[in-house]
Amino acid sequence: MPIRHLVLLKFKADTEPAQVQAIEAAFAALASKISAVQSLEWGTDNSPEGLAKGFTHCFNLTFADEAGRASYLPHPDHLAFVEILKPTLDDVLVLDYAV
Amino acid sequence: MPIRHLVLLKFKADTEPAQVQAIEAAFAALASKISAVQSLEWGTDNSPEGLAKGFTHCFNLTFADEAGRASYLPHPDHLAFVEILKPTLDDVLVLDYAV
Repeated sequence: MPIRHLVLLKFKADTEPAQVQAIEAAFAALASKISAVQSLEWGTDNSPEGLAKGFTHCFNLTFADEAGRASYLPHPDHLAFVEILKPTLDDVLVLDYAV
Repeated sequence: MPIRHLVLLKFKADTEPAQVQAIEAAFAALASKISAVQSLEWGTDNSPEGLAKGFTHCFNLTFADEAGRASYLPHPDHLAFVEILKPTLDDVLVLDYAV
């Protein structure tokens, strides 16, 4: 079964907009770098409900199956992205589910 | 632009499995009750990363546009569902983004 992999991000308050844009681009680029990523969409919170707990970004990745996720998580390009992300990160939430 | 509406749920520890199942069914049924819901998928967290902050369920709804969301949020069937949900709810997170 396909897996949706949701990653919610909250950046530190002092993160420059240019840094946020660079991270958005680097995360989105994983879709072309890592074949296990079947699709990737992302956006910034525009809910009027005020229940996002400070998370501003959602990246929504789809893997074909658990094997796809298992190849993504330790993939060097993923790990390299995480190193770019970490210094700017205030909080992260990851939730996956089978479609 | 279509909108993804992500709802993450964490139930109170004393919520009976049958109650959780009833809520899962009632939430999913909104897709057939409310025409603004273009699609709805949901699942329970199976991430190996341990970063879900206690949220166990994700419901992922798609609206055609902001007008669709604006008709969903105050819809009587949605509000009736929220009343069923509330007593069992430990925490909720809602994040929407334009696709």
